[in-house]
Amino acid sequence: MCGTGHAPHFCPSLLCFCVTSPIGPTICTCVPLLLLICFSLQEKKKTELCQELSLQARDLRFQHTTSLTARNNCIILRMAALKAILTPESLMVLDFRGLGLERWLVLELAPQLASQTHTLPFEFRALEAILQHKVNTLQARLNEVEPVILDTLESLVDPKILSADRSKLHVLLQNSKSLSELETDIKMFKDSMLKVLDEDETVEEFCLTKWTDPRVFEESSLGIDHAEEMELLLENYYMQAEELGNRARELKGLIDDSESVIFINLDSHRNVMMRLNLQLTMGSFSLSLFGLIGVAFGMNLTTAFEDDPRAFWLVTGFMFLGSGLIWRRLLSFLGRHLETSVPPRVMQTHTQTLCLVMCSCKVQSA
Amino acid sequence: MCGTGHAPHFCPSLLCFCVTSPIGPTICTCVPLLLLICFSLQEKKKTELCQELSLQARDLRFQHTTSLTARNNCIILRMAALKAILTPESLMVLDFRGLGLERWLVLELAPQLASQTHTLPFEFRALEAILQHKVNTLQARLNEVEPVILDTLESLVDPKILSADRSKLHVLLQNSKSLSELETDIKMFKDSMLKVLDEDETVEEFCLTKWTDPRVFEESSLGIDHAEEMELLLENYYMQAEELGNRARELKGLIDDSESVIFINLDSHRNVMMRLNLQLTMGSFSLSLFGLIGVAFGMNLTTAFEDDPRAFWLVTGFMFLGSGLIWRRLLSFLGRHLETSVPPRVMQTHTQTLCLVMCSCKVQSA
Amino acid sequence: MCGTGHAPHFCPSLLCFCVTSPIGPTICTCVPLLLLICFSLQEKKKTELCQELSLQARDLRFQHTTSLTARNNCIILRMAALKAILTPESLMVLDFRGLGLERWLVLELAPQLASQTHTLPFEFRALEAILQHKVNTLQARLNEVEPVILDTLESLVDPKILSADRSKLHVLLQNSKSLSELETDIKMFKDSMLKVLDEDETVEEFCLTKWTDPRVFEESSLGIDHAEEMELLLENYYMQAEELGNRARELKGLIDDSESVIFINLDSHRNVMMRLNLQLTMGSFSLSLFGLIGVAFGMNLTTAFEDDPRAFWLVTGFMFLGSGLIWRRLLSFLGRHLETSVPPRVMQTHTQTLCLVMCSCKVQSA
Amino acid sequence: MCGTGHAPHFCPSLLCFCVTSPIGPTICTCVPLLLLICFSLQEKKKTELCQELSLQARDLRFQHTTSLTARNNCIILRMAALKAILTPESLMVLDFRGLGLERWLVLELAPQLASQTHTLPFEFRALEAILQHKVNTLQARLNEVEPVILDTLESLVDPKILSADRSKLHVLLQNSKSLSELETDIKMFKDSMLKVLDEDETVEEFCLTKWTDPRVFEESSLGIDHAEEMELLLENYYMQAEELGNRARELKGLIDDSESVIFINLDSHRNVMMRLNLQLTMGSFSLSLFGLIGVAFGMNLTTAFEDDPRAFWLVTGFMFLGSGLIWRRLLSFLGRHLETSVPPRVMQTHTQTLCLVMCSCKVQSA
Amino acid sequence: MCGTGHAPHFCPSLLCFCVTSPIGPTICTCVPLLLLICFSLQEKKKTELCQELSLQARDLRFQHTTSLTARNNCIILRMAALKAILTPESLMVLDFRGLGLERWLVLELAPQLASQTHTLPFEFRALEAILQHKVNTLQARLNEVEPVILDTLESLVDPKILSADRSKLHVLLQNSKSLSELETDIKMFKDSMLKVLDEDETVEEFCLTKWTDPRVFEESSLGIDHAEEMELLLENYYMQAEELGNRARELKGLIDDSESVIFINLDSHRNVMMRLNLQLTMGSFSLSLFGLIGVAFGMNLTTAFEDDPRAFWLVTGFMFLGSGLIWRRLLSFLGRHLETSVPPRVMQTHTQTLCLVMCSCKVQSA
Repeated sequence: MCGTGHAPHFCPSLLCFCVTSPIGPTICTCVPLLLLICFSLQEKKKTELCQELSLQARDLRFQHTTSLTARNNCIILRMAALKAILTPESLMVLDFRGLGLERWLVLELAPQLASQTHTLPFEFRALEAILQHKVNTLQARLNEVEPVILDTLESLVDPKILSADRSKLHVLLQNSKSLSELETDIKMFKDSMLKVLDEDETVEEFCLTKWTDPRVFEESSLGIDHAEEMELLLENYYMQAEELGNRARELKGLIDDSESVIFINLDSHRNVMMRLNLQLTMGSFSLSLFGLIGVAFGMNLTTAFEDDPRAFWLVTGFMFLGSGLIWRRLLSFLGRHLETSVPPRVMQTHTQTLCLVMCSCKVQSA
Repeated sequence: MCGTGHAPHFCPSLLCFCVTSPIGPTICTCVPLLLLICFSLQEKKKTELCQELSLQARDLRFQHTTSLTARNNCIILRMAALKAILTPESLMVLDFRGLGLERWLVLELAPQLASQTHTLPFEFRALEAILQHKVNTLQARLNEVEPVILDTLESLVDPKILSADRSKLHVLLQNSKSLSELETDIKMFKDSMLKVLDEDETVEEFCLTKWTDPRVFEESSLGIDHAEEMELLLENYYMQAEELGNRARELKGLIDDSESVIFINLDSHRNVMMRLNLQLTMGSFSLSLFGLIGVAFGMNLTTAFEDDPRAFWLVTGFMFLGSGLIWRRLLSFLGRHLETSVPPRVMQTHTQTLCLVMCSCKVQSA
Repeated sequence: MCGTGHAPHFCPSLLCFCVTSPIGPTICTCVPLLLLICFSLQEKKKTELCQELSLQARDLRFQHTTSLTARNNCIILRMAALKAILTPESLMVLDFRGLGLERWLVLELAPQLASQTHTLPFEFRALEAILQHKVNTLQARLNEVEPVILDTLESLVDPKILSADRSKLHVLLQNSKSLSELETDIKMFKDSMLKVLDEDETVEEFCLTKWTDPRVFEESSLGIDHAEEMELLLENYYMQAEELGNRARELKGLIDDSESVIFINLDSHRNVMMRLNLQLTMGSFSLSLFGLIGVAFGMNLTTAFEDDPRAFWLVTGFMFLGSGLIWRRLLSFLGRHLETSVPPRVMQTHTQTLCLVMCSCKVQSA
Repeated sequence: MCGTGHAPHFCPSLLCFCVTSPIGPTICTCVPLLLLICFSLQEKKKTELCQELSLQARDLRFQHTTSLTARNNCIILRMAALKAILTPESLMVLDFRGLGLERWLVLELAPQLASQTHTLPFEFRALEAILQHKVNTLQARLNEVEPVILDTLESLVDPKILSADRSKLHVLLQNSKSLSELETDIKMFKDSMLKVLDEDETVEEFCLTKWTDPRVFEESSLGIDHAEEMELLLENYYMQAEELGNRARELKGLIDDSESVIFINLDSHRNVMMRLNLQLTMGSFSLSLFGLIGVAFGMNLTTAFEDDPRAFWLVTGFMFLGSGLIWRRLLSFLGRHLETSVPPRVMQTHTQTLCLVMCSCKVQSA
Repeated sequence: MCGTGHAPHFCPSLLCFCVTSPIGPTICTCVPLLLLICFSLQEKKKTELCQELSLQARDLRFQHTTSLTARNNCIILRMAALKAILTPESLMVLDFRGLGLERWLVLELAPQLASQTHTLPFEFRALEAILQHKVNTLQARLNEVEPVILDTLESLVDPKILSADRSKLHVLLQNSKSLSELETDIKMFKDSMLKVLDEDETVEEFCLTKWTDPRVFEESSLGIDHAEEMELLLENYYMQAEELGNRARELKGLIDDSESVIFINLDSHRNVMMRLNLQLTMGSFSLSLFGLIGVAFGMNLTTAFEDDPRAFWLVTGFMFLGSGLIWRRLLSFLGRHLETSVPPRVMQTHTQTLCLVMCSCKVQSA
């Protein structure tokens, strides 16, 4: 799959794209060969690679999930799963297997590196492809999380629902967690860019060709300042990450706002139900109060009305009418009571009112 | 609509305002022609424009929603929908169709650029017009959102309402989201200004005339330092954005404060209703307790009082009076109970009190 | 009211305090006249003033609510309503009418400017007076808002109240809003000071006399470094504003803490009422359960006990005693139930207990 | 109490500790006398002191609650109540009366200043003593507040309590306020240190002896760089304050977390009580439903069962058994209902179930 | 256990690992001996050690829980329990007893220091070992806290539970507190690293060998810049701490989000229970209303229907059917009522509806 003849040092195990010449992934060639070399580090002695590139073992440990550093005329970078070493002539991708990167490596990265339309040196092309890939990945994650959160919130803040759908809450919690992780990743990506951008010297170190191949630099038709170009390139991706970060932050804010609205909705529902409950309790109370009259007349005790044919209708009518009137009075009392804004004083009045109502009832029933 | 005779390079498709001379939008003229050239980039090869202005293709990608950069004696800016290139002699607005910008371009921007009262070069006039337009847009959005939010909050914190009006909550949520987006836009506008202001060199790059037309600079009647003027101009709009940001932040704070008040209101209403409910439950309990006496006398069992004519009135009176007294006692107990601040101990007392009350009732009824 | 003879350029419309000499507000005098000139800008051509002071029209627009800048040997400042231009010899206050500033201008500022005890030049005296006035205004606003908020919070966190007084909530919300606005103003005041303090050159520009009247500077008896004095003066007011900002922040924190306490209070009240309610519901349930026995005996059906004289007392006693015992059992069950901390398992036990209780009752009543 | 013979300028009113020689608090002595002079400024003309030390009146105003500045070879500092001027030979404490400082001044500060073990000049010893005192004061305040808050929170988050003890809430609120004030004080102390540490020149100004007594400096046995020593000294106390600030911040966080737990606790209690209440309501409903049968048979209307001796037991048994069964069915319905997570659909089913139950009851009772 | 022959100054009390030579812990030896010396400071005069290393007493006070400083060609560091002095030839660990460090010292640190594979001087090896140990400790603490918190949250946000398990809340609170403390420790570790990294000079001071043994430096086979290596080393651990801090922050965010979900869950449960309760209250009300008819017919009063055999069935049927119909009507009213979003107006309608229902009932029952 790959011409490994002239590159005995590297044993690219799986795939190697020799995009300009079939000579293979020789590193010390003078011709600016554009190469993408992919191999797993397990199968290659790390020390050999270090010696070849004059790097130190520590430089290839990739301890941080996101890092971007220039070391001895190489750019060593890690973007989550993607670990790569960028020399002026080739891009080496390490440990790429089983990370879902193969497709991107074969279908997108290789053609991009091979394209000759770019007027800038190889390291610009490679760095741009990798950073674009990283930003695209971040954006894809945000695009995945955002509509789910928006949909879930939309259905949760629906004022008609009495109780929050718990499965939706679970979905919200999961996506909220993903969003936090995404925010951290964006922040780390921005920090690693910023660390390079903060110092002009570091930016210059990133212009690998400038130091290795002065001829290429001088031949540059446009007389572009490499360092400035590198700064623009990094700044561009920094700002794209910044915009993603802004969107994520807005989404977090929307979740918070929606939760407040959900709480207000649930509380409102509860208040409405409590008012209904209170109104029914008032009705039951009225019925109990006047039902007591019926119970009294049901006692096996002598009253003067046993044989009065009108008595039944009078007492029954009084019971129903009386409880109806008391209920109506309690309802209008409730209406007035909830509108007033100085509760404690009204509370006392209320107690008195209730007592008065009861007393008048007793008087009436007596 | 536009004399395109002398400007074969540009084919302004829709409108072109030649404000000083009818010669047309020639760019390389020596006379400081003040021009506003609008065209869609689709109809023009981007590369031609790049070559003409010695820019690179990348400079005209406008990837970020808000950007402001000086490149090769041009100021390239994007303010949301407005994409423009500002040269020392003309302002080119790109892709302006269907963005609601036509009205502003024709009625406001063109006259402003044409006015000769300004003592400073063209790029100051153009930049001021564009930044002012951007700040006005931001302010208009805030002015649109602010009264809606204030009104909605005003009606939501109304202490008389028992449950929050859900349609208003929806309005609040929508506007709260708009406010977040506005805050992000203000922040990005401020950041793009700050990036220019932070470095003195960048500010100097923005003084296009200084570099191209030294004569204009020296003829300046007031001997003004262009860089300082540019800094003042940018700082001015930065501070206007800062004030807008402050207003937006205050509004956010007001929403938070109001939500707390809404919650306290809803909780207060609930407590008041619960107290009423509890008072009625006390009444119902009293009636049930003494109604049991009536039920007892209604049983088909032999009592000694069947023929006593006073028994009916005595028992009935006892039922009503007893339940009235117990209720009054429970109400006053509740009043005292809610005022005390050490609940656990009172709880026990309360249980005992209730039991005592019941026992005494049983004793009385026995 | 003012000798305008020698000052034909300025037409101070309302009041002008010529504190050292009656010659009037001539600006270009060589003698260090200490003057306070107040006039409305509408009645004076702005351009004249600009030409006189070699300023630009833009400098006198006062677009920001708080600004403090040195321009062409003048200090141009705006502190909310107060717009002023400070030259080495005089302080011009613009548009001062109807802003409540007259009293301060006449009674306080004029004497302060006229006092000769100060060993430092005029601009120090004037700047100190204005900044002190601004800080006093901010402090007065905080002093106005603070006790109201403290009082309102004090009465709202009172544990005895069952529901929050809504009028007090309204007061709190209003003052909370004022506090936010005050915080913004303090922040803007601090920012405008900091902008001057951050650069040594700007501080030097503020020492107007140093540039205009070297003689005054050298004659300075104490050999004070003007720039350092200016820095101390500005720093002093910066720190006073900082302390005000700290107090405002603490107040905000107190509001947040108090709201939490209010919520806990309301929730506690609700729980106490709910427990009482539950206890009464238990009582009602017991009465209903045993009342059913009375209802059963009230049916027009044949029992064997119709003529047994003890039956009435036995059944009645069983009804009351039974409901009392069941109630007491339910109450103690509730007490135990609320103390345990593993609710779900207890719930089942509870259901079983209730069923058992009921079954035993049925057994007993059967 | 103090030898005032040779110091006619100062009239230390209360106490003056001449720790090395009895000559008294002469300031302009050449011998490095180590002195602590305490006096109230009211009794001494401030101007005299200013002239003596070549300070300005403004320097002795002590306007900010925490300040630390070097002025004309003196260190002028204020730490809340403690106002002091530190010269290379003596430490003057102003206005110390009635502030609770006397004890510390006499028992701790004086001995510390007098101790000769320190290899560094006097100002180091004095500054260290004062900063240590300030840090100790801050720490004492935190140590006072912390256990109270921890205890209060411990008892408030106790899951057994049904309602929060309001007196404890009051204690919490008070201490939370104290904590906020303490945080502000720590922040201001840190800021005043940082202001000195941020500029190397200011740190050098603090090394008073370096400027006055070069001999002392050169004789220094260890060849220590005074400026570096001063930086270490200030940094040390800065970091101690930082650690106090961290503890205060953690405590604030704990209060917030505990409040959430308190709310969850109260809500849980309420839910448990509401479930119990609902279960009892179900019981009451069942009893009412089947009690209606009893009421029906109690009507004075002709049924066919009046004389059937089994009818009474059949109907009574049906009433109790029926209500028991319905209750059990409702309880199990509730159990299932609360476990399902899609409430709206179940709600309808529930309504139908209830209706079905009722209909079946009606059928059964008919 | 340790060759103390040639090191009379130090009396390492417990253990001393002479890893390269048995000559013992002599400090002033020229050969780069690699040593780990452990002793308790109590048993050794602190002053002796100070003199030996030309340090000052203050340097060995270890006042801050986390510090990292270079002093007189020694690195003095404290990482919580671990206090150490690092010279170019040896690492002295102080006061190590009873802190759980022995195991690490013997089993891990000693071999690491002794390993010769490292191409960099001793201080790099020692610093790397210590910082790695510290980061491992922090990570271990996070790894301990994280799963407990995740588990607890997992079980608390379970939508099936009606009330939060309080023992789990207690666990959450405890771990949340541990997390805060961990965050503070991480922050302090990062700050102490940052303080070194911020200044290039401080980083150079950390390269002890560079200053003492120039030969070692020049012999370095790779020509590595020591200062740059030191910067990379510190930066590496700084970034590892940063990643731990990010994880801790995400965890805090997750706790906050979960608490919101818990509250929504509890509120939802309450609303569902309240709806059920309201539905049952409606049922009880209907039964009470129509039960009143039965009570009326149970009165000992003359009606015309006493002997009508159909009357019993008619009235009984009417009672059950009527209450069933009213209940169904109330339930459907409730369903419609809770769906509508404009509560106040509906409230009135509702009251009217209820009254109408009652009136119609009265009409029907009359």
